[in-house]
Amino acid sequence: MPRPPQRLLSAQIIVDAALKMVDTAGDFTMPGLAERLNVRPSSLYNHVSGRAEIIELMRARAMASIRLDEHDAAADHWIDTVASLAREYRLSYSKHPRLIPLLTAHTVQTDVAFEMYNALATAFTAGGFSPAEVLHAITALDSFVLGSALDLAAPQEVWANTPRANEPMRAALAAAGTAPNRADDAFDFGLRVLIAGLRAEASSAR
Amino acid sequence: MPRPPQRLLSAQIIVDAALKMVDTAGDFTMPGLAERLNVRPSSLYNHVSGRAEIIELMRARAMASIRLDEHDAAADHWIDTVASLAREYRLSYSKHPRLIPLLTAHTVQTDVAFEMYNALATAFTAGGFSPAEVLHAITALDSFVLGSALDLAAPQEVWANTPRANEPMRAALAAAGTAPNRADDAFDFGLRVLIAGLRAEASSAR
Repeated sequence: MPRPPQRLLSAQIIVDAALKMVDTAGDFTMPGLAERLNVRPSSLYNHVSGRAEIIELMRARAMASIRLDEHDAAADHWIDTVASLAREYRLSYSKHPRLIPLLTAHTVQTDVAFEMYNALATAFTAGGFSPAEVLHAITALDSFVLGSALDLAAPQEVWANTPRANEPMRAALAAAGTAPNRADDAFDFGLRVLIAGLRAEASSAR
Repeated sequence: MPRPPQRLLSAQIIVDAALKMVDTAGDFTMPGLAERLNVRPSSLYNHVSGRAEIIELMRARAMASIRLDEHDAAADHWIDTVASLAREYRLSYSKHPRLIPLLTAHTVQTDVAFEMYNALATAFTAGGFSPAEVLHAITALDSFVLGSALDLAAPQEVWANTPRANEPMRAALAAAGTAPNRADDAFDFGLRVLIAGLRAEASSAR
C-alpha cells in the first residue's frame, strides 16, 4: 500500500491547530499537534523551531487584529492613545482567554506585540513618566487588560445567587450583576478610573 | 490475582491532583484525573459531583491563604481594606496562574470567595459608590489583580531584547525590565494608580 501523501503543512496551519487546541483544552503538545494534523511530529519542525515559536506565533495571531492607528503617536493626548490601545487589546485577547497564561509565561518576541508596546511607551513617555514608570504603567495596563479579557469571556452569571453574599454585595449584584453589558460597563469604569489615576500620577511627577 | 485495593479517596485528594494537572498542563479531565489517581472514574463521583465542583474546590483552595483581617470591615479607611485584599488575592493566585482562566470561566460559588467579595463590597459601599459602581469597582480590581498574578508568574525576561523596541520602550526596559522586583514594583505602581483613580471617582460621585 502506498503511504498516504503528507498533508501540506505550513506555519500558519500549525498555529491554527495549536490555537484550537489551546481554546478547547488550555494547552497543546508537539505530539498532540502532530496527531491532530495527521503528520509525523518531525514534519512540524520543518516549519517551526518548536513549542516556544508556536506560542509566539499565537501571540502574533491574537494581536494581529489590533488596529494601531497611524496617528496614535501624534494623538492629541497620550491618554487617547492609551485608552484606544487598551480597548483593541482587550477585544483581541478575549477571543482566546485560555491562551493568556501561555503568553504571559513566555518572553514577548513578536514584532506585532512590540508595535503595541512601542506605541504605549511613546504615549506614557509623552505623558511625562520616567522610563521605569513607563514600564510599570505598561505592565499595570497589561494586567488590567488581560484580566478584563478573561472577564469578557466569563459566564453570564459571574457570581452565584447565594445567601453567602452580604447586603452590599447583594445590592451590587442586583444592580449590575446580570446586565447584558456587565463586562463592558465594568471595563469602561475600570479604564476610566485607571486613566484618571495615571493622569494624576503624571501630573504629580512633573 | 486479587484486585489491588482501591486507593483511599477524598475530595481533598481529588482537588490536589486536579490542581497539579492544571499547574502542569493547563486543564484536567475526569478520566485523566481517575488515571492519575489510579482509581475508576466512577469512584471520583462518590466524592465530587463533577468537573464544576472540582473547579470550585480549586478556587476555594487557591483563596484559602487569603487573610481576611477581622478588622477589615471597620478599617480606618475603605482604601486600606481594598489595598490589603488586592495584595493577598494576587499572591494567592500567582501560585496557580494556569488555574486563572478556568476560574474566570465558571460562576463563583464558594464561601471563601464570597468572604472576599463581601469585604470588597462593604469597603466600596463605605467609599460612597452606588451598588452598580460597587460591582464595576470589584470587577476592575479583580481584573487588575488576576492580570498581575499572571505577571508575577512571568519569566525573568518579560520582553526580549530586540531591535524592534523603539527608543522609549528601550529606555523603559533598560530602567526597569530586568529589576529583580520588576513585577512587585509594577503591581505597587498599578495598585497606587488604580486606588488614586477610585478615590477620585468616589469623591466626584458624592
